[in-house]
Amino acid sequence: MQRYFLNEPVTTTVGQTFAVPTDSVKHWVKVMRAQPGDAAEFVTVDHAVLVAKLVVTDGREATAQVVSNQQPQVELPLPVTIACGLSKGDKPEQIVQRGTELGASAFVFFDSQWAVAKWAASKRERKLARLAKIAQGAAEQSHRTMIPTVSYEASLAQLLTNVPYDAGVVAWEESAKQGESSQLVQTLKQMTPPQRLLAIFGPEGGLTPDEVSQIQAAGVTAVGLGPRIMRAETAPLYLLSSVSFWCELV
Amino acid sequence: MQRYFLNEPVTTTVGQTFAVPTDSVKHWVKVMRAQPGDAAEFVTVDHAVLVAKLVVTDGREATAQVVSNQQPQVELPLPVTIACGLSKGDKPEQIVQRGTELGASAFVFFDSQWAVAKWAASKRERKLARLAKIAQGAAEQSHRTMIPTVSYEASLAQLLTNVPYDAGVVAWEESAKQGESSQLVQTLKQMTPPQRLLAIFGPEGGLTPDEVSQIQAAGVTAVGLGPRIMRAETAPLYLLSSVSFWCELV
Repeated sequence: MQRYFLNEPVTTTVGQTFAVPTDSVKHWVKVMRAQPGDAAEFVTVDHAVLVAKLVVTDGREATAQVVSNQQPQVELPLPVTIACGLSKGDKPEQIVQRGTELGASAFVFFDSQWAVAKWAASKRERKLARLAKIAQGAAEQSHRTMIPTVSYEASLAQLLTNVPYDAGVVAWEESAKQGESSQLVQTLKQMTPPQRLLAIFGPEGGLTPDEVSQIQAAGVTAVGLGPRIMRAETAPLYLLSSVSFWCELV
Repeated sequence: MQRYFLNEPVTTTVGQTFAVPTDSVKHWVKVMRAQPGDAAEFVTVDHAVLVAKLVVTDGREATAQVVSNQQPQVELPLPVTIACGLSKGDKPEQIVQRGTELGASAFVFFDSQWAVAKWAASKRERKLARLAKIAQGAAEQSHRTMIPTVSYEASLAQLLTNVPYDAGVVAWEESAKQGESSQLVQTLKQMTPPQRLLAIFGPEGGLTPDEVSQIQAAGVTAVGLGPRIMRAETAPLYLLSSVSFWCELV
């Protein structure tokens, strides 16, 4: 069933009707050709999932009636913020799209010393808007009940100051090379829901030893993610899968 | 350091020399412009890693001298075969590239009832050759000591007959919807290295209930991979990350 996110509060009472937001009308009625009686899912601002039936539409506006109202648990018990150095090409898009499917709560892209890519100030807002749209699409497809946020920090220092977290890990290749293999598990064992995990990843070129020291000085733990070398856009997917496996399956 | 796979046995004794295979000469000498004295890593057919220095080259042939000889443990203790229904576009490429980084031992693509993509017999060999090349490149980049194999099976029945495994799981959306959350962990708990895990995934359209029954009848367990819906090319990455987390970090 098609899923849409509502950005304003609506009635959640079964049998009541609400106005479908214009964006969703466009997709549901124009693209998906919904007819009166057809149902879709609407995620409320409080993360409830309403199944609602189309009552009437003129193609621009639409009224839907609440059929059921649920609060499915589909979000990671430990919310994860994925912070990545700026990487090239469509890597930020890939990280946001797949990371959203895998349950990330927030994405932060930050400038770092060895980053090859730069986000010119003039293009930054457009890039963030595009990534937010990708996050929304992936959240709808993967049946999330929240859309991850996407933001930018101009430096590692700003990242560490501005992003709230209860525990932090930084994926560091050198940890992996030294055979470090238990810090991620230790960190997860010490966390209890709904504590927030910040996971920091370098750009393609990696983080400098200085940056890793700065991150560790902020209380963030350097962790190895297994003995294989992963690309910048793959390591966040490993981390998110591991957090899900640990919190939701083990 | 650049890494190349050798496809024939060479001396592994420190100080001895060997002829660098033509393919590697082309990349190492022509593309990377290696000079006598420069070092690279060569993975032997027995999965050892030799560091070797270029001794002499005329641009077509090259001789290298073994500097060191190691047997790093970078392969998953439980070898995983990823079997996927045929999916569209570049999804097979993505699965092979990222799945190789995440440690898969083998990839099998199989035709299934709801597969939208078809691999015409005339193009199959070319597709497999291309995917094998992607696996080799990703294995070099991620510092694996083996190159995953890539193959094709014309049906689910052939897959289940031809692919050897000690335990099997099939990712099934319905399991996830029903809140199933422990079968993957149970399966992994019962395995001991070097037992082989077969992990089966549907194409975009999923597997039919009939196919899932057929798979289960072969002793393969239906597993949920968390409460979010993942795309066909993301679910194998979740599985591989989870196996690594379980075997290599926990």
